[in-house]
Amino acid sequence: MPTQEQMKSALQAYVDGFNSGDPAAVTALFADDAVVVDPVGNPPMEGRAAIDEFYGNAVAAGAKLSLDAPIRGSHGDRAAMAFSVNMPGMRIRVIDVMTFNDDGKIVRMEAHWGLDDIEQ
Amino acid sequence: MPTQEQMKSALQAYVDGFNSGDPAAVTALFADDAVVVDPVGNPPMEGRAAIDEFYGNAVAAGAKLSLDAPIRGSHGDRAAMAFSVNMPGMRIRVIDVMTFNDDGKIVRMEAHWGLDDIEQ
Repeated sequence: MPTQEQMKSALQAYVDGFNSGDPAAVTALFADDAVVVDPVGNPPMEGRAAIDEFYGNAVAAGAKLSLDAPIRGSHGDRAAMAFSVNMPGMRIRVIDVMTFNDDGKIVRMEAHWGLDDIEQ
Repeated sequence: MPTQEQMKSALQAYVDGFNSGDPAAVTALFADDAVVVDPVGNPPMEGRAAIDEFYGNAVAAGAKLSLDAPIRGSHGDRAAMAFSVNMPGMRIRVIDVMTFNDDGKIVRMEAHWGLDDIEQ
């Protein structure tokens, strides 16, 4: 299991990758067979190709992330963060929960946000 | 499935129940067969008796909760919140994710916090 520090560093790198416009820095954090559920309640995206496409589009759209509070760890293989996705004319309030494998890669990402969490 | 508004109201009631020292107001939000994982990585607590004991002790210990950011919903049956647990001489930074049943009761609570998220 990765350390708390490793997991929190990965979540910070996820934020930084968006903010430097570098989708490869974001997708490199994921295992090849990872599952991304964004938002929770929609069908999951599975595997390298789907993840590369999803984050490529999100970063290209100009989404910038700002943490609303310090990143949290756990007593296990998960870390979580509350942040805002800032795009021109729109802000989405999100809580992501990430699960890691023993190699320190993200194997599951679940993003919690609803239509009521969008400010325009 | 409960509405976003119903789920967010339940999470606010959870915070308010702690802050008014009323454990019954907190435990009434849960289904009888709910599962509480606090923190993630420790064994789950299952069912009414375990949940009543857990929250009875937490409220009796004087834990007060303060939201760090607005409560998030989802596109499904989950809502999440980033908050701090404030006790005399200690603060724990937590992200809770709650899953609801069709009756609007919490069936699963997962609390994300690690030893590094405790400030003394």
